[in-house]
Amino acid sequence: MTYCVAITMDAGLVFCSDSRTNAGVDQVSTYGKMYHYSVRGERDFIVLSAGNLATTQAVVSQIKRDIRDNAATSLKTLPDIAEAASYLGEISRQEQDKHVSVGGPNGGTSFEASFIIGGQVAGDKPRLAMVYPQGNHITTSKDTPYLQIGESKYGKPILDRILSAGTTLENAARCALVSMDSTMRSNLTVGPPIELGIYPADSFALTRFRFDDDDDYLRALKKAWDKYLIEAFDRLPSLNWSDSVSHDEQG
Amino acid sequence: MTYCVAITMDAGLVFCSDSRTNAGVDQVSTYGKMYHYSVRGERDFIVLSAGNLATTQAVVSQIKRDIRDNAATSLKTLPDIAEAASYLGEISRQEQDKHVSVGGPNGGTSFEASFIIGGQVAGDKPRLAMVYPQGNHITTSKDTPYLQIGESKYGKPILDRILSAGTTLENAARCALVSMDSTMRSNLTVGPPIELGIYPADSFALTRFRFDDDDDYLRALKKAWDKYLIEAFDRLPSLNWSDSVSHDEQG
Repeated sequence: MTYCVAITMDAGLVFCSDSRTNAGVDQVSTYGKMYHYSVRGERDFIVLSAGNLATTQAVVSQIKRDIRDNAATSLKTLPDIAEAASYLGEISRQEQDKHVSVGGPNGGTSFEASFIIGGQVAGDKPRLAMVYPQGNHITTSKDTPYLQIGESKYGKPILDRILSAGTTLENAARCALVSMDSTMRSNLTVGPPIELGIYPADSFALTRFRFDDDDDYLRALKKAWDKYLIEAFDRLPSLNWSDSVSHDEQG
Repeated sequence: MTYCVAITMDAGLVFCSDSRTNAGVDQVSTYGKMYHYSVRGERDFIVLSAGNLATTQAVVSQIKRDIRDNAATSLKTLPDIAEAASYLGEISRQEQDKHVSVGGPNGGTSFEASFIIGGQVAGDKPRLAMVYPQGNHITTSKDTPYLQIGESKYGKPILDRILSAGTTLENAARCALVSMDSTMRSNLTVGPPIELGIYPADSFALTRFRFDDDDDYLRALKKAWDKYLIEAFDRLPSLNWSDSVSHDEQG
């Protein structure tokens, strides 16, 4: 499994991904899941991937090949994030179709992969899209400023409570890291190193961080969050025991 | 779907369940999922249920019938929580077996249900068990002081961060309510009223609460948690931008 989250705010975009992949519990590897392509001052694309590793690697390879070969359609030429998402979805679906079959040795195997693609093309604002395994995609909205792929449930509540359009890049980045930490605690198949990318609107420059398991900042963040959360918890209003209702069924 | 959580501490037990059931998005109903049986000073059993509503209702009916009819094996006679869990698992499996079939009109339908059973029998300490749809069960441990059934992922991180054997009943109850709130925000199929049961060790008395959507305490709790969480968040250590690594792939 995998966990990736991307957040859009007025101030820009934040991307965060883990690096663990697994095919069963004894086939665990480390692969980065964040790919970045930029033409300085003109376009920045960031791609996060989850799902079948062979599919995601093949898709990223194809994206790179199209750039290198100056294909008619590539991240070098596509006019906006929406078209880039369609292009990525089409590659992903084609790659899956190569292997899927109803019966035979591949029958029943899932080759599905999901992607988040975001960034900015000069003249447009920064945008995000999530590409489904089926190849179609959705974007964020004012009410839902983030997109997740992979093991998304454990890390969702903190995003819902903290994020809004006015969130700063710094806060969104920390929120993504806390969301990642909550997920790593609860699910063994999500693990470090953690990659973080911060894209300030109109900057055409991505600032990237990589946090290993023993990273000082990540450890300080986790420790502080645990401590402050318990402090916050202790301040919650007390339960009024006289509000109890009693409807015991006596034997 | 459903969300139920039960917590065991030195101080006693806490149970929390939502009341929403659904079979598709337009067949949503309200049913309590907490059943309590006690013989004052001698035994207290609390049962939480998730899964197929017909199965869970049939199981609780059978439990009640066995008590009423003075059956040889019932919550009136069983010597401990472990045997009560086995008894509950056996009823659940038998009830599912009545309806399951490979083909025919019932083919492919899931009649599965999960249960948490907890409480205390005089002479033993308070205990919890989770009964799988297959009929077998697990208990808590020192490291895992809680059990969940239903839509468990959204509400898990807060339990992991707050709970330990030394947690007070009051804090465990508030933690269960925060965990429930996180789940309700993220999943439409989990909803109020929320039922809460607090069982102090050796009390042989369950204190029950019921919180409707507009309950003053529940609203105050949610509001305070949102506020304190944001405050806690703002105190987190700042990201050191100079720690960034740059490995952009330029076009």
